Amino acid sequence: MNVLVINAGSSSLKYQLYNMVTEEVLSKGRVERIGMDSSILTHEVDEKPEVREVSEILDHTTAIRKVLDMLTHREFGVLRNIKEIRAVGHRVVHGGESFSESVLVDKDVKLEIRQLFDLAPLHNPAHMMGIMAVETNLPDVPQVVVFDTAFHQTMPKNSYLYAIPTVLYRKHKIRRYGFHGTSCDYVSKRAAEFLGRPIKELNLIVCHIGNGASCTAVLGGKSFDTSMGMTPLEGLMMGTRSGDLDPAIVPYTLNKEELTLNEVNSMLNKHSGLLAVSGISSDMREVVQAMKEGNEQAKLAFEMYAYRIRKYIGAYAAAMNGVDAVIFTAGVGENSDVLRQAVCEGLTFFGIGLDHERNAVRSGEPRRISTDDSKVEVLVVPTNEELLIARDTYRLVLGEGK
Amino acid sequence: MNVLVINAGSSSLKYQLYNMVTEEVLSKGRVERIGMDSSILTHEVDEKPEVREVSEILDHTTAIRKVLDMLTHREFGVLRNIKEIRAVGHRVVHGGESFSESVLVDKDVKLEIRQLFDLAPLHNPAHMMGIMAVETNLPDVPQVVVFDTAFHQTMPKNSYLYAIPTVLYRKHKIRRYGFHGTSCDYVSKRAAEFLGRPIKELNLIVCHIGNGASCTAVLGGKSFDTSMGMTPLEGLMMGTRSGDLDPAIVPYTLNKEELTLNEVNSMLNKHSGLLAVSGISSDMREVVQAMKEGNEQAKLAFEMYAYRIRKYIGAYAAAMNGVDAVIFTAGVGENSDVLRQAVCEGLTFFGIGLDHERNAVRSGEPRRISTDDSKVEVLVVPTNEELLIARDTYRLVLGEGK
Repeated sequence: MNVLVINAGSSSLKYQLYNMVTEEVLSKGRVERIGMDSSILTHEVDEKPEVREVSEILDHTTAIRKVLDMLTHREFGVLRNIKEIRAVGHRVVHGGESFSESVLVDKDVKLEIRQLFDLAPLHNPAHMMGIMAVETNLPDVPQVVVFDTAFHQTMPKNSYLYAIPTVLYRKHKIRRYGFHGTSCDYVSKRAAEFLGRPIKELNLIVCHIGNGASCTAVLGGKSFDTSMGMTPLEGLMMGTRSGDLDPAIVPYTLNKEELTLNEVNSMLNKHSGLLAVSGISSDMREVVQAMKEGNEQAKLAFEMYAYRIRKYIGAYAAAMNGVDAVIFTAGVGENSDVLRQAVCEGLTFFGIGLDHERNAVRSGEPRRISTDDSKVEVLVVPTNEELLIARDTYRLVLGEGK
Repeated sequence: MNVLVINAGSSSLKYQLYNMVTEEVLSKGRVERIGMDSSILTHEVDEKPEVREVSEILDHTTAIRKVLDMLTHREFGVLRNIKEIRAVGHRVVHGGESFSESVLVDKDVKLEIRQLFDLAPLHNPAHMMGIMAVETNLPDVPQVVVFDTAFHQTMPKNSYLYAIPTVLYRKHKIRRYGFHGTSCDYVSKRAAEFLGRPIKELNLIVCHIGNGASCTAVLGGKSFDTSMGMTPLEGLMMGTRSGDLDPAIVPYTLNKEELTLNEVNSMLNKHSGLLAVSGISSDMREVVQAMKEGNEQAKLAFEMYAYRIRKYIGAYAAAMNGVDAVIFTAGVGENSDVLRQAVCEGLTFFGIGLDHERNAVRSGEPRRISTDDSKVEVLVVPTNEELLIARDTYRLVLGEGK
């Protein structure tokens, strides 16, 4: 009862193989530099040292074949036969308005994903290559697609429409979609379990703070508003993305710097955020380290980053007219006690009290970091998008819930 | 002791003549369609019927001459001699980083304002035409410029920097400036007086909601953060401006609709906001009327508009870690009890209680519209930008405060 989870990028592909009876990860790894001359496959099983193989992998079909070879390898494999893979689940970034939940892949679904290429030109074509590559290598294995946007399809119009001519929505589907939905769904359910309260009664704010970062208002278990927009550029300041900007800055910069549209997109998505302001790194750990060593730009970048999370928490507390719990998740959210402290210390007005000892604890489990008398709970809930993809895949293929 | 206040646009010019001893408006009016063949001068004195004169006014110099002729007109005038105008104050939209307060116009100031043309191409050149026109007509009268941005120059870096490559700030001065500063300054001081508390102790949120609209966090009397950005496009949804957007929408639309940079700027500034979503009008009164008659698009536009104000109030309450009073001002903010109710009803979590009877009262005076036990005060404080311009002009020219 094994499920293979695939996250295909344009020149990379990550995988995790789950045993769905135990929900154990049997193996995981990644292929990098697909299409270049020295591609790298990195493969892990349990606690054993990583296996690293350099070869020429010119396309995703070859990449999947290499992964399957590795999973059934005499020495490094975990399967005797690829037939032991009963289903494959894919992460797909953009499901547009077509998908409000995970679905089994068929001809129509593939067509729909293709029609969304325009909205996610960097992601959806790569995901499609992953799907086609699996189809070629494992023609009889059912595939499932799980969308980053699906969870946010419950947002009301107030949240998802922009105040621009309606033709742009009707004709080009320009609206807020939101991302990190799989993660938001997972951690908000985990948070409700942890709090021992029905999710229907809870107003939650999920701060998914990784290299990409977003805040989501989750009202009664459903996405009510979220900081990422039509694309993952809007909202919080991120590792390399600017987040919110005066939209007039885009034409101004295009004009002043004589950039092309691709160059301005690349600037705002890949050369902005923590990286641009700190001048050091897009990695919060390095920025915090530099700040501790007295680097002023790093301190400014850190403070801007925390300040913007704080503003979104305030905005969503207002949007829902109340918040029961603020949840930190993903790489930075789970691991940076310094950031969580910077965010929460400025929110005492909202009834947030942070317990510094609890905040300093590291653990892979959901935990409370607020004080016992904090009016609003503050939780750290580790996310696990791959597990949720595996679960949805298992459920849809075998027709049972978990 | 008369001061003439001028607000010059590219094809229009508004004026108010103040007696600064009594702070009374002696006369006010406007010239429209400057540079076109049938320009219109509209002139008011007290409660008398408006005087309307159609003629050819090809430039601002002629416009100012016509205004001066009218002010000294035998029948419609209020002055015997133009020498009774002791000073002229101009509204200037963009003062960049050069001006953190009002200043007397001299050669250097004019040069600085010219250097800011790039940042406010629709406004500053028009203001400069106004200044030059006064200089030509009243060569011996001192002039003062009062900047919409000046009050916001106290914002900390966290608030005013965007998370984009720092070269864009250093080279092109791309940062948040904020606007409506004159109004924010005036109403926050008025609010402190009304509350009988020192402004230094107050956390205020000023919602200046007119055809342009902004929220400003005023901490201890100083601007701490504001929703308008490098230009007046960012932030709240406005009459015809989109406000906040995923910045990626700009290149996307440029590409999809094959627009020029000017066209996309025009779309976002002049054809978006309330007008675009309601499909009816940029005027809140008409949108509310249509909503009351059951128009769904008008209802959606109204709700989006209110929702976004609510989110900014929440964000700034978080930014300052607390808020003592929320203040509504400007055309819509002062007059639309329906809007104020829609904003405040969703903020009970913040300790805001709206008194519906008080909210329904119309008056030109500052007033409380929150309940007596509301934790956060909600006030309506009529703004008067022209008066503040007149006062700054008077103070700088005569070297005395008021």
